[in-house]
Amino acid sequence: MGPSTPEAAVEHPEAVRQLHREFLRAGSDVMQAFTFYASDDKLQNRGYINSKTLTSKVINTAACAIAREVANEGGALVAGGVSQTPTYLSGKGKGFTQKEFQKQMSVFMENKVDFLIAEYFEHIEEAEWATEVCKATGLPVATTLCIGPDGDLHGVSTGECAVRLVKAGADIVGINCHFDPTTNLAAIRKMKTALDAAGLKVHLMTQPLAYHTPDVNKQGFIDLPEFPFSLEPRVCTRWEIQAYAREAYKMGVRYIGGCCGFEPYHIRAISEELAPERGFLPPGSEKHAPWGDGLRLHTKPWVRARARRSYWGNLKPASGRPFSASLSTSDSWGVTAGDQELEQKTDSTTDEELKSLFSHSENST
Amino acid sequence: MGPSTPEAAVEHPEAVRQLHREFLRAGSDVMQAFTFYASDDKLQNRGYINSKTLTSKVINTAACAIAREVANEGGALVAGGVSQTPTYLSGKGKGFTQKEFQKQMSVFMENKVDFLIAEYFEHIEEAEWATEVCKATGLPVATTLCIGPDGDLHGVSTGECAVRLVKAGADIVGINCHFDPTTNLAAIRKMKTALDAAGLKVHLMTQPLAYHTPDVNKQGFIDLPEFPFSLEPRVCTRWEIQAYAREAYKMGVRYIGGCCGFEPYHIRAISEELAPERGFLPPGSEKHAPWGDGLRLHTKPWVRARARRSYWGNLKPASGRPFSASLSTSDSWGVTAGDQELEQKTDSTTDEELKSLFSHSENST
Amino acid sequence: MGPSTPEAAVEHPEAVRQLHREFLRAGSDVMQAFTFYASDDKLQNRGYINSKTLTSKVINTAACAIAREVANEGGALVAGGVSQTPTYLSGKGKGFTQKEFQKQMSVFMENKVDFLIAEYFEHIEEAEWATEVCKATGLPVATTLCIGPDGDLHGVSTGECAVRLVKAGADIVGINCHFDPTTNLAAIRKMKTALDAAGLKVHLMTQPLAYHTPDVNKQGFIDLPEFPFSLEPRVCTRWEIQAYAREAYKMGVRYIGGCCGFEPYHIRAISEELAPERGFLPPGSEKHAPWGDGLRLHTKPWVRARARRSYWGNLKPASGRPFSASLSTSDSWGVTAGDQELEQKTDSTTDEELKSLFSHSENST
Amino acid sequence: MGPSTPEAAVEHPEAVRQLHREFLRAGSDVMQAFTFYASDDKLQNRGYINSKTLTSKVINTAACAIAREVANEGGALVAGGVSQTPTYLSGKGKGFTQKEFQKQMSVFMENKVDFLIAEYFEHIEEAEWATEVCKATGLPVATTLCIGPDGDLHGVSTGECAVRLVKAGADIVGINCHFDPTTNLAAIRKMKTALDAAGLKVHLMTQPLAYHTPDVNKQGFIDLPEFPFSLEPRVCTRWEIQAYAREAYKMGVRYIGGCCGFEPYHIRAISEELAPERGFLPPGSEKHAPWGDGLRLHTKPWVRARARRSYWGNLKPASGRPFSASLSTSDSWGVTAGDQELEQKTDSTTDEELKSLFSHSENST
Repeated sequence: MGPSTPEAAVEHPEAVRQLHREFLRAGSDVMQAFTFYASDDKLQNRGYINSKTLTSKVINTAACAIAREVANEGGALVAGGVSQTPTYLSGKGKGFTQKEFQKQMSVFMENKVDFLIAEYFEHIEEAEWATEVCKATGLPVATTLCIGPDGDLHGVSTGECAVRLVKAGADIVGINCHFDPTTNLAAIRKMKTALDAAGLKVHLMTQPLAYHTPDVNKQGFIDLPEFPFSLEPRVCTRWEIQAYAREAYKMGVRYIGGCCGFEPYHIRAISEELAPERGFLPPGSEKHAPWGDGLRLHTKPWVRARARRSYWGNLKPASGRPFSASLSTSDSWGVTAGDQELEQKTDSTTDEELKSLFSHSENST
Repeated sequence: MGPSTPEAAVEHPEAVRQLHREFLRAGSDVMQAFTFYASDDKLQNRGYINSKTLTSKVINTAACAIAREVANEGGALVAGGVSQTPTYLSGKGKGFTQKEFQKQMSVFMENKVDFLIAEYFEHIEEAEWATEVCKATGLPVATTLCIGPDGDLHGVSTGECAVRLVKAGADIVGINCHFDPTTNLAAIRKMKTALDAAGLKVHLMTQPLAYHTPDVNKQGFIDLPEFPFSLEPRVCTRWEIQAYAREAYKMGVRYIGGCCGFEPYHIRAISEELAPERGFLPPGSEKHAPWGDGLRLHTKPWVRARARRSYWGNLKPASGRPFSASLSTSDSWGVTAGDQELEQKTDSTTDEELKSLFSHSENST
Repeated sequence: MGPSTPEAAVEHPEAVRQLHREFLRAGSDVMQAFTFYASDDKLQNRGYINSKTLTSKVINTAACAIAREVANEGGALVAGGVSQTPTYLSGKGKGFTQKEFQKQMSVFMENKVDFLIAEYFEHIEEAEWATEVCKATGLPVATTLCIGPDGDLHGVSTGECAVRLVKAGADIVGINCHFDPTTNLAAIRKMKTALDAAGLKVHLMTQPLAYHTPDVNKQGFIDLPEFPFSLEPRVCTRWEIQAYAREAYKMGVRYIGGCCGFEPYHIRAISEELAPERGFLPPGSEKHAPWGDGLRLHTKPWVRARARRSYWGNLKPASGRPFSASLSTSDSWGVTAGDQELEQKTDSTTDEELKSLFSHSENST
Repeated sequence: MGPSTPEAAVEHPEAVRQLHREFLRAGSDVMQAFTFYASDDKLQNRGYINSKTLTSKVINTAACAIAREVANEGGALVAGGVSQTPTYLSGKGKGFTQKEFQKQMSVFMENKVDFLIAEYFEHIEEAEWATEVCKATGLPVATTLCIGPDGDLHGVSTGECAVRLVKAGADIVGINCHFDPTTNLAAIRKMKTALDAAGLKVHLMTQPLAYHTPDVNKQGFIDLPEFPFSLEPRVCTRWEIQAYAREAYKMGVRYIGGCCGFEPYHIRAISEELAPERGFLPPGSEKHAPWGDGLRLHTKPWVRARARRSYWGNLKPASGRPFSASLSTSDSWGVTAGDQELEQKTDSTTDEELKSLFSHSENST
């Protein structure tokens, strides 16, 4: 078993249900079924190869059922999602890659999801192929890439990527994961410019990390030395998320969410910032006063003095870590799709292979 | 309504249940009923004054039931808890203060908790009074203070506090909240030295924050400008928590837990670090390999190279916030128990009062 | 009186002489006469308006004499220099601007300088005018701009600037001041690319700050909140300067120097790094062993252990300032040449005017 | 050759003279002859062993002459100084140690210095011995130690050290080097308390580093990884030095100076801060307006807006180094006087010995 655990929908449904519910109460309009990386080829990579019970069909069916159950508690939509596949990365071509997506589609259609999300693509070609498969279902499709503002997907510019996705059938295009809100919005701006120039009218979608990543290179936060187990000091505050939501809204983005690192209170921050536009506050705000106003009741007067927007809006929070630097140097060994180093492995790395990686790692520091 | 929300046990039992369950699966041996600050006098302070349904009896009964239900899923103990009261802080004396504690005891006894925790005391006198009331039930009592290593509780040294708590009847003594693990253990060391010198044999207990607070003064993290809504960059990593658990164990502490900022994965880090001593891993470790070993399966080779203890154990994580300092200057207006500024308020601070606080705050910068 | 003090050559010749000598002993090949901002129009701005003794002629003659005297102690060249003028910034046109430069030329020719430097220009047009005036003397001319890699001088790209300077007559082109070594070299690279593309063969020159300025915007370090009286934490170490010298040399730069913040030991670091190429060490290295080797004699063994290149080359020096951020937000009120705000003033700012600036400043934070 | 270069007084008298002059013009009341570590035993350690011309007598005589010459330019006093000796550290006892001091005394008496400074002692015993030798000349004696506030000199408290120095004959006692101004003053406060308690009335003297060192342990800045070649980011600003001078003055200190890292402009900052008390500004302030007031004349309005005390007094300067931490972990291998590791060496460390140190160093990280 490895870093991805889609089987939770089967093994711990009450946990997945409660997680959905907390996002719903925080104001989410969409319950995205917990199907990330739950394609059969990925599950095989992760050691489920001989499993008869933990197939993508079983897992994704359970995930859709939970998402729908909770969505019904609050009038939210349900989305099914697909993402990049080992099949593509291993260079097996369009036919095999689209077949993986199609297998997932059939589950989503049976479970009557409201729309489809094709997300977390690092190659525009694979994103187009996924979009086509989604589009063929007749449902609305939102496609997002992992791409930065000055970066590109192997030679295709951020703006051009957006245009190609629309041409492939996407109703909503945008960016998810890999970068922080600021970097994400800078890239979205390039998409918007290119779409406007091409005369294409679609909605924009942002799902950045809730981690500050001003120091990442093109490949995103995965290359940060802190990924994935020491990212805590980079987590955004609720105020930083409110600023992001406002900025995204001003830019014309109307599908405003988050990716890794977002907890329910971050989504609630989006809902609160945009409450004037949405016309209501989410259930989860019932006991959460805006801009720290609940501190009026605090015992200590200097804490009561923090009950104001100008205080939290201007605070630059300290890390309490004087022995840490504020930025890191990204790892990157310069390999891309097709390289042998990136071929998907079905077995775990051996100790021998690891040793060679460790020594490579130390020399590259 | 204000910053404390004990009524969740009544209003959202499924959320409280799931939270308990995640801590249980992370390896917690104790389900502490969700009764913090749920004394009648505190509830009145928080605007529940006219409530017939949200009495401390109703809330604490619900909290005990949930704790017991989940404890039974994994053989954990259930603890009931009391903490400092507005009654004491407002100077109403021993009789009234102990009466508040007694009201809570009756609920705990009816619900057959396994032991009692008297925690979060900023005054040794009130902690003694609480310990006496707990002790009178016949159940084991664990009492913890909010106290730093060089700090003191209004003139009583850290070591002397420990001795007085044992004399008041505590079976376990220690420190909770207000300081980070490092600061907490430095204070525990002083307690241990004093207890040894006095020939007293009791167990020690640590429940530090999961926030780095090297920059706090005597009154703890409440005085940090980031409290309570911008503490994210200070959150400990799992590796930092493992180091804390090991250090506490070496020092002889046997009740090793956490306070504000601890999430289930932090508790799991304690369970994993002490797995050799406990003889087993918690259920929540089933899919969490030690020291990042799950990264062996990662797509990118430089991430696979992070699958080792020396990598995570030595990493100094960056904050991604180059415009923030690493430490903050604590607020502190120099007031203590008895001062008019600290008298408990039943109404929320008025706008007029707030204005005067804001201006005080700006001048004290 | 004001921030610039060229009159030191007249009033404290022994201090200027000793400063030149320390740079000479550090390995400088050029003694640049101490004539920065010593044009008549600038001196008038600085309150020397009624002075009969402190004219630009008197000051620059004294500066040339001292430079020549020290240059002769070590076989160095003497350069005379001109820089941007209030006349240009106030929009008085080519005739008046070139007249200011010509007045300075006559002093340089009388004093037989070896070549001319036209430096610190923020407008390509004025730099061209200065280059023409210098070129007319028949002496070699080195012209440098204050320009960053992605910045531009009011619409003219970094590369195009370099080409225009060569066409105006410059024998050496480059960049001085405003940015740190890293930023400076990134801009030099653009100049080199453009010059190569245009088939122009001239020498390149770099004179960056000795201050780290990763956080400045187009207008350079002047906009940093720390300018000019709190730049200490940004000062480069000798090792950082050695790295800069090596990188510049590799890039093909052959006039490698420094601007504000460079002290003699920084210049010595350049001389030591390039000693293999130059074939000798400077006199000032007689008692300065390379890479901390002198520490072999230190009393404490852990300090002796620092006597090696890998130690100093990899060290990331701490600031000792945990309450400071690592980066600053630049000031910038968005005004450029021609704006009323930038018109040169002959009187000091009045208290009334200052008050309005202070309030503008606080609102722009 | 080595890290200390007292022979400059002989080899480059014009450089030493100009340095004295700049401190004089910055407001120094004392020209301390450039004789630090110029005892015969130390010179032998540093490779001058066979020198007939570079004896301590020749060097110190030259140093005294230059100090007197410059002192006469501005009515300053001349001080001769002694400091800790290899003889003491190698355990040769009182007789041999005092003989080293006496050899230096004879030069000081011949050259008619005005008073004596015994400084930079890490052992109270050696400081007492030095004070006795100085006192025997009949001149006033100022003795300073390298000691921190919570530190001690091998078991003797900071306060007790002060008392012992007075009893040994010191007219002025204090602390020099090793710690930053803040740490230094905290230790001085302890000295003052102990002297007051003992009813001893002497003057206090402070000569801290101009480097921020909140992160050093008992042995001072030598243990910082940045010592001695990467201390730049720790250099104090003039404003920080003004704050130090004011605080020292308030505490009753009347000999207020600086040690390593102090440049003339830092001394000028002391003179300017205490100008109201001294009744005059130093010559070097003629063109240096207080609190950045000279910026009123700057071209850019946002720089003019920095011409005020509240701006510079509150600024927390950034380091421009986002990849550096703000604090360092001190080296310290736990050895003290008498240990073999600290025995003075007359030869430079061999390559073989260095290798073993490097490996020790890497393991201790």
